[in-house]
Amino acid sequence: MIESMEKRRTIRSYTNKQIDDAVLLDLLKIACRASNTGNMQLYSIIITKDAEQKKKLAPTHFNQPQVMNAPVILTFCVDVNRYQKWCKINKTEAGTDNLMFFTNAAIDTTIVTQTFCTAAEEQGLGICYLGTTLYNSSQIADILECPKGVIPLCTISVGYPAEEVGQQLRLPFKAIIHDEKYTDFSDEQIKEIYKETDEDESNKEFVKINNKKNLAEVFSQIRYAKKDSEFFSNEFLNSLKARGLLF
Amino acid sequence: MIESMEKRRTIRSYTNKQIDDAVLLDLLKIACRASNTGNMQLYSIIITKDAEQKKKLAPTHFNQPQVMNAPVILTFCVDVNRYQKWCKINKTEAGTDNLMFFTNAAIDTTIVTQTFCTAAEEQGLGICYLGTTLYNSSQIADILECPKGVIPLCTISVGYPAEEVGQQLRLPFKAIIHDEKYTDFSDEQIKEIYKETDEDESNKEFVKINNKKNLAEVFSQIRYAKKDSEFFSNEFLNSLKARGLLF
Repeated sequence: MIESMEKRRTIRSYTNKQIDDAVLLDLLKIACRASNTGNMQLYSIIITKDAEQKKKLAPTHFNQPQVMNAPVILTFCVDVNRYQKWCKINKTEAGTDNLMFFTNAAIDTTIVTQTFCTAAEEQGLGICYLGTTLYNSSQIADILECPKGVIPLCTISVGYPAEEVGQQLRLPFKAIIHDEKYTDFSDEQIKEIYKETDEDESNKEFVKINNKKNLAEVFSQIRYAKKDSEFFSNEFLNSLKARGLLF
Repeated sequence: MIESMEKRRTIRSYTNKQIDDAVLLDLLKIACRASNTGNMQLYSIIITKDAEQKKKLAPTHFNQPQVMNAPVILTFCVDVNRYQKWCKINKTEAGTDNLMFFTNAAIDTTIVTQTFCTAAEEQGLGICYLGTTLYNSSQIADILECPKGVIPLCTISVGYPAEEVGQQLRLPFKAIIHDEKYTDFSDEQIKEIYKETDEDESNKEFVKINNKKNLAEVFSQIRYAKKDSEFFSNEFLNSLKARGLLF
């Protein structure tokens, strides 16, 4: 396993080979063995294999080709609906419409997603997270007929790899790990930490194409621009409130 | 790996055996290979081994014994500080104080946490998530000297297992998995799904000790009571705002 984890790459292109149902279910069962808050299992997993459903989902993921190309799309949802219903038939109030419950459920949902990914990759499958899920969670919830208390959080495409890709750069380890206390960074240290990223040829090309001065501009002004983040934050907050996940 | 994932149990008691530094760092490096949003790596990991630091952390985790007992405590933090500083020296605004950035960073932080856990378990280590992190994130941030833009999200204790414990019950698979669309549950289905949980002897004992009528009451009135969740939600929201993670 450790080897498959060390060598992993995100895979966006898949062969025609289908994933055996038993294999998929086994991997999902393994994922559900992961830790979760108080064993409430505040998540649900929706399997999409049907081409018509994929067609409906594709625009919500900004038509990223892997939605149609992957044999399986998995949507991992925060789910307080099941827990609420259990409380209701036991005549007690669940009290789940708050940030604490949502954050716990979001952590649990992410844990189960990532555990699935690690297990799937070890079995030779390739995965890709679709970050678009947060942008259009409400529309995805409608397509998947999620009731109140359920909101999509993580989507992954999964299938047998049809591409060989290099590993992405990561920041140097000293940027991530702190010993006993967080040691903040000087400007010089930040420059050093981001040196390899800033000087990477494909990143430089990316800066040029986008007509920006540097990679930080591309990220902060185009890929994750403040106004877009604020727009989608508002959409997401409204979606959480409308679906009874936040008061 | 698949076997270690299938058989995993949360471990709260550890032997005196220390974790070799090189082993720990290798596992953390492997964890950082996991997927993350736009390769921004919006997380930091703080290693606690020092007994004095553990003593300070213990009350923030409601004195759960594994904080002192484990050779290593790892605090995985949402971190937009490093990214902000990179943007600043490149004279561009990061725009990270919104729900979208926070949720993305929280997902990334959880992914790296859980990837570490899976790798560590495969190497014979045992882990336990400390859900208390969200309750006292601000106090933990102070102890670990986190600057603005950094907030603890997941803490795990890790060490070599000194206990053998049984696997916890999980809900039946049909409660979690939905095919193509979410299929909502009737009262009868909810009863069936929770039957094994409700009838479990140790859960029944737990209900009796707590002087409640059923397990749903214990969860909704004691363990995750609405008023407590709302109190800690407010604390957490204030903490996110004070630390510049939400506007």
